[in-house]
Amino acid sequence: MSKGLLISVSGPSGTGKGSVLARVKEKDPNFGTSISVTTRAPRENEKDGVDYYFKSKEEFTKMLEEGEIIEYDEFVGNYYGTPTIPLQEMSEEGTDVLLDLTIAGSMALKENFEQSVTIFLLAPSYEELEKRLRGRGTDSDDAIDARLEMARQETNFVKDFDYVVVNDDIETAADKVLAIITAEKCRCARNVDMIEDVIKVNKEMEGN
Amino acid sequence: MSKGLLISVSGPSGTGKGSVLARVKEKDPNFGTSISVTTRAPRENEKDGVDYYFKSKEEFTKMLEEGEIIEYDEFVGNYYGTPTIPLQEMSEEGTDVLLDLTIAGSMALKENFEQSVTIFLLAPSYEELEKRLRGRGTDSDDAIDARLEMARQETNFVKDFDYVVVNDDIETAADKVLAIITAEKCRCARNVDMIEDVIKVNKEMEGN
Repeated sequence: MSKGLLISVSGPSGTGKGSVLARVKEKDPNFGTSISVTTRAPRENEKDGVDYYFKSKEEFTKMLEEGEIIEYDEFVGNYYGTPTIPLQEMSEEGTDVLLDLTIAGSMALKENFEQSVTIFLLAPSYEELEKRLRGRGTDSDDAIDARLEMARQETNFVKDFDYVVVNDDIETAADKVLAIITAEKCRCARNVDMIEDVIKVNKEMEGN
Repeated sequence: MSKGLLISVSGPSGTGKGSVLARVKEKDPNFGTSISVTTRAPRENEKDGVDYYFKSKEEFTKMLEEGEIIEYDEFVGNYYGTPTIPLQEMSEEGTDVLLDLTIAGSMALKENFEQSVTIFLLAPSYEELEKRLRGRGTDSDDAIDARLEMARQETNFVKDFDYVVVNDDIETAADKVLAIITAEKCRCARNVDMIEDVIKVNKEMEGN
């Protein structure tokens, strides 16, 4: 069986990554989901391994040291990370996993998993990005300037990704992400076992 | 502007290549078409550059020698070939061209054009291929055996293609071919100019 793909979508704040990923999952609900590891205490009704993997700071640090976290962030004194082992397991079972990662996270994924597919989501233009960020009405002008500066820096990494999708329109961008996944599954380099089987059958028939 | 892609689909006789290609063109009628070069005389109503490029044997031989023919075949004393120059021109204009090539033709395309995408179409199984060939009712048993032997030999080349699509079902196979084309257009390696523009704009903004 072929391994499931680990597909990451990265992009600066304001490119519409969340909406595109949500639309992709609506169109194809079979993707596996990455559950984050956190050091914060579970809230009422939250289940370990469902909402989060709840870990102590010591456990989290150990996971980090052992390379079992692709990327992590700190928020009000707690760590939140993307663990590698569940990704590995889902992929081995043939499940494709769709990941919402930072640029650094996508690069770490690419480095660690041959079954990775990295997609950079771009806003149609810098002006459009600025319009979207200001249109949200949630950030201060300073925060928006900081996000725009971050976006500028982040787009310098586009070339290190496998694919770039311009998000002119959520529907079209979601279709492109799905097309990329379909195409990647057809790549000969990802079908070595199947191709070897075909050639083996050929050789056996020649022998007859 | 990005170059148009030159997409070739190859596959042994009986894999349903003709039906899949026809379905792909129905779904997306914007592909450019390769017009063959032939040494046979034009029939009534046939127009040069529309039905065929009509050439003398000397002209055809010259084209062959100058590497202007990707692949050719002889049929009742006349040559039929796929010329490279119109492909180059359509691609430069940004038109994607869908090609029905032999395995050798696809390999020549891959060698000569960086904008090539090569797809191998496989029957779901050898048994299914045999069933399809016998089901046509047009060939003698000997001819079918020869086609099957040819198919066996041809499938040994799958691994040299970019993609492999199993034709379980014409509709699904056509969708996979279209997904491959969509994905290839999103590959960062095919969007170098666009990415450079984005980075250039970034740098200019930094300067302000």
